[in-house]
Amino acid sequence: MSEMHDVRVRRVDLEQFCADVFGKLGMPLEQAQDSASILVAADARGIASHGVARLWRYVNGIATGVMNPVTESEVVHRTPLSFVLDAKGGIGLSLSKQVMGEVIGIASKQGFATAAVRDSNHFGIAGYYAMMALPEDMIGIAMTNTAALGIPTFGKDVMYGTNPIAVAVPALQQPAFVLDMATTVVTRGKIETYLREGKRIPHGWAVDTQGKDTADADSLLQDMLIQAGGGILPLGGRGESLGGHKGFGLAILVDILTAVTSGGVFGRSVMDSEKTSARVCHYFAAIKLDMFRNPMEFKKDMDSMLLDIQHAQCAVGQDRVYYAGLKEFEHEQDCAVHGVPLSDKCWDGLVRISEEMKVSLPPGMEV
Amino acid sequence: MSEMHDVRVRRVDLEQFCADVFGKLGMPLEQAQDSASILVAADARGIASHGVARLWRYVNGIATGVMNPVTESEVVHRTPLSFVLDAKGGIGLSLSKQVMGEVIGIASKQGFATAAVRDSNHFGIAGYYAMMALPEDMIGIAMTNTAALGIPTFGKDVMYGTNPIAVAVPALQQPAFVLDMATTVVTRGKIETYLREGKRIPHGWAVDTQGKDTADADSLLQDMLIQAGGGILPLGGRGESLGGHKGFGLAILVDILTAVTSGGVFGRSVMDSEKTSARVCHYFAAIKLDMFRNPMEFKKDMDSMLLDIQHAQCAVGQDRVYYAGLKEFEHEQDCAVHGVPLSDKCWDGLVRISEEMKVSLPPGMEV
Repeated sequence: MSEMHDVRVRRVDLEQFCADVFGKLGMPLEQAQDSASILVAADARGIASHGVARLWRYVNGIATGVMNPVTESEVVHRTPLSFVLDAKGGIGLSLSKQVMGEVIGIASKQGFATAAVRDSNHFGIAGYYAMMALPEDMIGIAMTNTAALGIPTFGKDVMYGTNPIAVAVPALQQPAFVLDMATTVVTRGKIETYLREGKRIPHGWAVDTQGKDTADADSLLQDMLIQAGGGILPLGGRGESLGGHKGFGLAILVDILTAVTSGGVFGRSVMDSEKTSARVCHYFAAIKLDMFRNPMEFKKDMDSMLLDIQHAQCAVGQDRVYYAGLKEFEHEQDCAVHGVPLSDKCWDGLVRISEEMKVSLPPGMEV
Repeated sequence: MSEMHDVRVRRVDLEQFCADVFGKLGMPLEQAQDSASILVAADARGIASHGVARLWRYVNGIATGVMNPVTESEVVHRTPLSFVLDAKGGIGLSLSKQVMGEVIGIASKQGFATAAVRDSNHFGIAGYYAMMALPEDMIGIAMTNTAALGIPTFGKDVMYGTNPIAVAVPALQQPAFVLDMATTVVTRGKIETYLREGKRIPHGWAVDTQGKDTADADSLLQDMLIQAGGGILPLGGRGESLGGHKGFGLAILVDILTAVTSGGVFGRSVMDSEKTSARVCHYFAAIKLDMFRNPMEFKKDMDSMLLDIQHAQCAVGQDRVYYAGLKEFEHEQDCAVHGVPLSDKCWDGLVRISEEMKVSLPPGMEV
């Protein structure tokens, strides 16, 4: 959010462009459209690091054969409330939408359902899938492990990914509570942004090859690339004083729920290589509000809780208190009127993809 | 863990003492024994803040009538996979053991079960209940909201409790993964320890009445007592730079899963008063490993993951990397041999309770 956004594009136009690109890569029409809308949802919610800026990964991944444009997934385990899927190196986006759709379908009958997916690829923002549960009066949960870049408490080598947790809970009139958080302090994208802007990274974000504090984005990213040691710290920072062991515990929990459940790859083995993309695992769950209470009463209490937070007294120098999902909701509203903002760098990437793949660029909006 | 422990007591003796005290307070025998063993489990796992140091709260709470020694709980909602209980101001300890037992019973048939409890009291360590799932080849989950002492991101007044999350996952030969974490940076007890030791609290733990950083444990605790503003920060600290909004989101998630599900009290309304103890809400769930995979294969992968972590390279100046639950497991092993360590202050409290209630003190062990 700290970067200048010089181009704005209508959401539908951006979706169409991405769908066209996915289509040219050999993805069936419906999957291409779903994948496009999930990717663009990240930009629309202000999480640009997980949006169309990653389109080149699919272009390169499919071109070089490390990703599979056609998903040939297989159910490897099933119970009345759960299933486990082998994604066989397919694209995570449309597959995950399909899996969460099935989870919601089972939960609508049973009250609860859950699924784990192995051998998949990047699935965009976890929050997208958690939010699919909202209109069904369910709490939605989605997680994924990712390529290793996180340092264990008291360690110095990477051992887990940004491993996000997303939980969405419906309210009545207030925008839903949507927690969608990496369990590391920050993501790699944030470090890259600091490097581009020539800034030193804040104390508490990362450590060097010795496991000591570092402020140097350049060497950090280099060291991470060649796995020389050093990496990003868990939520709570270095050591235990500010609770870093808690963030580390949450990251491992995500690794367990995504990869140990599904029989997939976890820990430092989740890595990109020349032969293959990092094969990640996902976790999904949905639980009906009426497992606990009349949904209307539940949602009224949610409204009251979320209004309390919005009306909280601000710290000196601050002008608003937000709950999880509120900023993202407002960003999405803004995009509906003014278009989706893209950084110059991201836009340039789309221009190159458009030229290489001979797909029409979406028109930019007047800002 | 930073305090000197000058007294050690055999675990069974400490349990007997607490059970005798609960019995004298009017609690039925089985409930008194369960409550005692849950309370002592906290000390045995090295979480002294939630152990027998809190016995006086029950003594005072029941003596003054703000807590109810006899639990007359009522099921207010039930589905095949879930139930919600009104604890009617009962003691949280034995009741929660009973609820988690029933959750496990349902999950053993259905694969998954969940329960929420409202209008309860302090239930000890959340990890105790999560760990009940381990021998059943299930993942166990327990949470509770607590009296408000946490500051929202960009705010200055307390709005939520330490709101712990516990998740226990079985392994084969390695000690289980047991995450049991407050979603605030630290608990109130930690601040009190710093005050007693005359130390300034670390940057990033708390803010003053204006929402600015504070290192002054004394004024912080005073201000919190009279609700003048100021309080403890969420995991991730002040503002968003180190991820404080994530810890805040997790704390609110716990408030939702415990209190909005159960129709109980949440947010700043969870407060001790002259008339009543803070009435807190709990959340429990259990999910069978075979919802995902053959439990033996699951647990073998857990062993491999947990060994990877233990074998991780240490940062300079560190000598071990731990996963969640490992330190607590080793503490418990040590207590089995050398007795449960109690601080002088805690021991003095037990001596006073023993005199007031005419219950024999447990014998101290030779150290």
